[in-house]
Amino acid sequence: MDEFELIRRFFDRPSTTADLGVGDDAALIQVQPGYQLAISTDMLVEGRHFFPDVDPYALGHKVLAVNLSDLAAMGAQPRYATLAIGIPRVEIAWLEAFSAGFFNLAKQYGVELIGGDTTRSAEHVFSVTIMGEVPTGAALRRDGAKVGDDIWVSGELGTAALGLLALKRPDKADQLKADHTSWKMMRMALEQPNPQVLLGQKLRGLVHACMDVSDGLLGDLPHILECSRVGGAVVGWEMIPCHPKLKDWLYGESSTSRRHALKALLAGGDDYQLLFTAPSEHDALIRALAQQLNIRLTPIGKICADPGLFIVSNEGELLEAPDLPSGGFNHFQ
Amino acid sequence: MDEFELIRRFFDRPSTTADLGVGDDAALIQVQPGYQLAISTDMLVEGRHFFPDVDPYALGHKVLAVNLSDLAAMGAQPRYATLAIGIPRVEIAWLEAFSAGFFNLAKQYGVELIGGDTTRSAEHVFSVTIMGEVPTGAALRRDGAKVGDDIWVSGELGTAALGLLALKRPDKADQLKADHTSWKMMRMALEQPNPQVLLGQKLRGLVHACMDVSDGLLGDLPHILECSRVGGAVVGWEMIPCHPKLKDWLYGESSTSRRHALKALLAGGDDYQLLFTAPSEHDALIRALAQQLNIRLTPIGKICADPGLFIVSNEGELLEAPDLPSGGFNHFQ
Repeated sequence: MDEFELIRRFFDRPSTTADLGVGDDAALIQVQPGYQLAISTDMLVEGRHFFPDVDPYALGHKVLAVNLSDLAAMGAQPRYATLAIGIPRVEIAWLEAFSAGFFNLAKQYGVELIGGDTTRSAEHVFSVTIMGEVPTGAALRRDGAKVGDDIWVSGELGTAALGLLALKRPDKADQLKADHTSWKMMRMALEQPNPQVLLGQKLRGLVHACMDVSDGLLGDLPHILECSRVGGAVVGWEMIPCHPKLKDWLYGESSTSRRHALKALLAGGDDYQLLFTAPSEHDALIRALAQQLNIRLTPIGKICADPGLFIVSNEGELLEAPDLPSGGFNHFQ
Repeated sequence: MDEFELIRRFFDRPSTTADLGVGDDAALIQVQPGYQLAISTDMLVEGRHFFPDVDPYALGHKVLAVNLSDLAAMGAQPRYATLAIGIPRVEIAWLEAFSAGFFNLAKQYGVELIGGDTTRSAEHVFSVTIMGEVPTGAALRRDGAKVGDDIWVSGELGTAALGLLALKRPDKADQLKADHTSWKMMRMALEQPNPQVLLGQKLRGLVHACMDVSDGLLGDLPHILECSRVGGAVVGWEMIPCHPKLKDWLYGESSTSRRHALKALLAGGDDYQLLFTAPSEHDALIRALAQQLNIRLTPIGKICADPGLFIVSNEGELLEAPDLPSGGFNHFQ
């Protein structure tokens, strides 16, 4: 199968909203008057972002999901994506499953694949560029947080990190995989995250700053503080919603398990939840939105004038090393 | 150096035309009323698209140039790009040179880097998504060729393929590198191609179909025929402008060198010239444009009703195997 046949067979779907889709030197689109185009790119590499034996359907889902999460964090409506793939060999069944995972999620959010590239490479590598529309001036940015804002998070943190632990650490695997339903949830959180696209759009007008948690709270929250040029933040680690297994470890006997749990919760990465700050007068509106969308939205701290990121217990005790994990995920650390 | 420091140091330049550039979950741009956005993506992988020891400045240039060439082929004005890079390790000097090559070309064409991703990978891999503006309805597409159209090509074909031959084949290297100036031209054609951005924009209104020659004439021209649903094309291989060294081989004694030369000319790839079809009444306008831009534009054949791609000599003799190369570059052949 040659490159063009491969594209035709797995990645060429008739365009619906684009003026010109896959198959020319470039695609052509129009942006609605009064809207900005939000654009983001992510690259996922085998062995770093996913295991070589990952389920290809889940992988097709995830390469799009992590990009959708970036648009969610901007409050944008997803519209178009391009997909560049490098693969070591052409495996029909693998490509069929990958493409099904990608297109099923794309369909769910009305995303049209308008271009891409396929090439051979030593390891699997994927790069998606996603484009969405947002009314001009209404995007949720990282730079608007104000002292006194509540800090909110959607869903749970740390569940994907638990899934990763179960796959990477044989000594933890038995415990984590014991309950089938619970293990399935961890695995889904890790391999098929659900981007908070609708939530992002509904948060327009309600929040001062927003981003998605992809590198863990300790890695990501500082970006909001830095971009917004506010002093710091206080976060109550016991307020952060998490999986029951994580809770067991957090309050269990074993100090090793407790550290694993704190690391998953605060620096785990791959959560793809939204982290946002809002003035307290929006508290009721945000709670109503949570009910309307049936999404858990939880206030976990406050933006403060003092510089620094302070992680505290319900009793106000500061979490410090060695219990405090050293930071979020960093590709070059 | 962590991921964010790396981005700040090498890839974060203040945004000028974008509403929001590098540093948030997504960039924000606006498209001028009455314009479409043209979007294209390419992925370049070490060992496949470039040698591991390639000059990083040239590589930074090339990853952007191949994308600019796609916009040139659409007649679009380049505006924005995103860059995702996977690298095995952080080498300051390498990244400095790469980023200088990228930004120097970006500046030349008014392209703003608005986003990206950096990650670690086993081999170097780069993915650029480029965006440009084109007046609505005026883009040069592949699907408009008509029977009777002249087929034109810009510049020379096969020079990059000669450069590749000099690097890959020690038995040919001495001959090809003997003349320093000539060797430098081959190497520049291969490693630092000049996309025909201005030409593409000036061709709006003059041509029926256009694309860039990246996989070789035999690989690319069939796309125009197929998209335009016209029968076929006759191309005079002796009409195609090429490097003097290639001409030596084409008309020399050695049948091996002749086949190498025909392969470089017709199926070489990496030329990044424009291939377009136009009605003969535009002949004078196209020649005037060539003079105005000081670019070589050459008619090399005709679109015909008979299905097939016929490569003929000046005497009308059909080029056949083994002299006829088997096709353009294909990543999965």
